[in-house]
Formats: sequence, C-alpha cells, structure tokens
Amino acid sequence: MNNLFYCPEMAPGICTLDAEESRHAVRVLRLHEGDGLSVTDGCGHLYDCRIVTADDRACVVESVGSLPTTHSPLPTLHLAVAPTKNPSRMEWLVEKAVEMGVGEITLLQCDHSERSFLKTDRLEKLAVSAMKQSLRCWLPAIRPAVKLSDWLAALPDQPSAQRFIAHCEDDQPRVALGEVLEQGRETVVLIGPEGDFSRQEIEQAMGCGFRAVSFGTARLRTETAALYAVAAYNYVNNR
Amino acid sequence: MNNLFYCPEMAPGICTLDAEESRHAVRVLRLHEGDGLSVTDGCGHLYDCRIVTADDRACVVESVGSLPTTHSPLPTLHLAVAPTKNPSRMEWLVEKAVEMGVGEITLLQCDHSERSFLKTDRLEKLAVSAMKQSLRCWLPAIRPAVKLSDWLAALPDQPSAQRFIAHCEDDQPRVALGEVLEQGRETVVLIGPEGDFSRQEIEQAMGCGFRAVSFGTARLRTETAALYAVAAYNYVNNR
Repeated sequence: MNNLFYCPEMAPGICTLDAEESRHAVRVLRLHEGDGLSVTDGCGHLYDCRIVTADDRACVVESVGSLPTTHSPLPTLHLAVAPTKNPSRMEWLVEKAVEMGVGEITLLQCDHSERSFLKTDRLEKLAVSAMKQSLRCWLPAIRPAVKLSDWLAALPDQPSAQRFIAHCEDDQPRVALGEVLEQGRETVVLIGPEGDFSRQEIEQAMGCGFRAVSFGTARLRTETAALYAVAAYNYVNNR
Repeated sequence: MNNLFYCPEMAPGICTLDAEESRHAVRVLRLHEGDGLSVTDGCGHLYDCRIVTADDRACVVESVGSLPTTHSPLPTLHLAVAPTKNPSRMEWLVEKAVEMGVGEITLLQCDHSERSFLKTDRLEKLAVSAMKQSLRCWLPAIRPAVKLSDWLAALPDQPSAQRFIAHCEDDQPRVALGEVLEQGRETVVLIGPEGDFSRQEIEQAMGCGFRAVSFGTARLRTETAALYAVAAYNYVNNR
C-alpha cells in the first residue's frame, strides 16, 4: 500500500485533503502531481488515489480505484475505560488500542475516578495517526467522559454481545477472561480507575449483563488492563 | 498485600533495603519502626516484614514470615526485540511487558536496526518498579543488545520450547499466532526493528526452529507487536 491518508469525505472521484493531511503529503513526504497515495474515509473504505493538485494546504486527489479494506469491522470491541490520573497514559492507550484493533472507546466517570474529565480532541488526533500508521480503514469513535451509572442505564439491549467488567475486588467472584471470552462476538469491556470500581458500580454493571472477569494474579494499571483486553480480543479473533 | 519493596539480598531474618527503596519506604511512604511491608528478592520469594530501623538511606527490615508468591515462574516468555529508534517506546514496552508478565527480555541488533544499542540500566529500573507496581515477585532479566545472528548461533537446544518470529514479509508463509501458540510451554518470540528482519535473518531463525507468525492484517509498530505477543502469551496461560 502507498502512504495512507485520512479524509472523512473521501468518495469515488475528486476530493480535497484537509490542511494537516495536505501538509503531510506535500510538505513532509514531498508528493507531487500524479503521485499515488492511499486514502481512507475511516469508515472501511480505502481508495487508490493520484494527486491532482499538490497544494500543501488543500491537496486535491482523485480516486483511480478502491482497494480491499484491511479487515472487516465486525465484530468489534467497545472499550469503556476510566481516564487515568496521568493523561499521557491514556494517550498511549488510545494509540496502542487503535493499532491492535478497537471499535469504540468510551471514557468513564467512576465513583473512584481521580480524573473525571479528559479532552477527546487530542485522543482523536492520536487515533487518526494510529489508524494510518497501522494501515487500518476504520477510525474508532472516542466518546467523551460519561458517568458510568448513566452510561449503563442508557445501554441498549445487545443479546448478541458479550459484556465484561474487570475489577480487583478479590472477595467478589470473577472468572479468568480466557475462560469466557468467545470468538466472533461483539464485546464490551469495562476497565475501572486507579481506585477500582465501587461495589455499587460492579453490582449495577452485573445487573446489565456484565460478567466479572480477572486478568490474572498481577495488579495491572488501568491502561495496562485496558490494552490487555484489546490484545486478548484481537488474539481470539485472529485479527 | 502491604506495599511491595525489592531487595535482591532479602532472606529470612534481617535485611537492609538499598538507598532508593529506603527513601521510598521512609521518606515517601513515611513508614516507621514496626510498620509492616512486603519485600521480594525478585526470584519468586515474598516476605512479610517489619521495619526495624526507619533509616531513609538504609532501612533495616526483619522478615516475620514468607508469603505465597503471586504466580509460578514457569513456563516463561522470552521476548527478544530490536530496540526502537525512539528509546521511550522501549521504556514503556518494558514497563508494560513486566506488568503483563514476561520472563526475560533480550535486545537485538538486526540488519535493519535504526538503533543497535540501548543502555539497559534505565530499563532495569523500570522493570523493578513495574514488578513492584504489579505485585510480582519475579524480576525479568534484561539482556544488553546482541547481534541476532550471534544470538541465534548461541541459542541452546530447547526441544520443549516453542519459538516464533514475527515478520512482515507478505510473500513469505506465516501462520496466525493464535493457530500455533500453545499453553503451558516455554516460549520465545522474536520481534524485529522498524525496518523488519532481513531475509537472511528470517531464514537463520527458521533454521533454528522459529516458526514465522503473523499478528494480523494491521501494521503494528515494533513495541506494539512485542506487547501484543506478551499479552497473547499471558492470555493463553491464564496468567
């Protein structure tokens, strides 16, 4: 594949890359009129393109064919995770989760959260570059922080989906993720803050069909546990 | 468990923590004489201790019993990985790999390496803090960079071990890791540099019993591929 660029409006025919992508194509990679590049709309479509106008603020490209996407979007993993106190840990989680493969990331405000708010614009930028870096054609949505109890209350019924909550309450029954994670199913995983989920949050989630799982005997940081779930999901689905 | 401290000389009886651990116990956590703490020797032993002398440069502790270790060390994963151009990516790889569980990390000099050398002292510090953070009692060894061809030539026969090389040569046959990774076996995984392994390196490794594996259709960064292998290994072994 040529270098991969992102343009949400990309469709068969002529399209103009935004300022950042134009700068990357024309100024950084020094692509000229007629040069080839690949462009994705972030919704599973991948286009084989040529540069029509090598403008470093508004690079115009023309699609000369569409290419097979790198992989189908379903089933997907929905990761719902409480932001860590240190924002840089969430930034690398987003980068790595998008590289390994994740469908959607929702930020959670939990009873024991040390950080209940985190701006998503920087995370979205990181998701775009990780999607391009890993040559993926699906841009995961990153949802702004929402209170876990509200999010659970609004969660639609998904009989086909498997739902897991990873908590550290040793006196609560949990099964190893490997015992219950099934291949080929929509999956939702809840990862709590440094202070773990509250007892009420665990009970509410289990009332919504979330199964309590353990990721092993070690104590994992929030972002490590989240990435472990992403890797395990992609491993069982052979992605 | 109490806060976990690391003291390689720890044994039943009296022991003195090094300056860094003493500072952490006495200055940072403000532990006093008689306070309890857990100490591991990094070799699988975990001791329940009490502070005898709360000296912030040489804290003396006494073991009052040994505790069960968090998990058995075997089988282990030996990760052999080419350092990334950007050292900070290796630093987080070491932190995350130790948290998720790895037995040994060897740095590789490869034909296409953009960085053939990386000091291990900082990586070892990160490994110690990740071991403590994750409440593990096994400190993974971190081996200084060695030329891949030399390392392969010196590799002992391990009929019981499974060996994998993850490369990106699409025209070379590879199987998905999930098709071949077996539970309960010593495992060695080779991860190449940004420029991938050379054809000769792949052939030499396969001659040494390394099976060529793929981690899916996406293009993963070196450190992402390495951490994916660590997560998959721990997932199949239910660690």
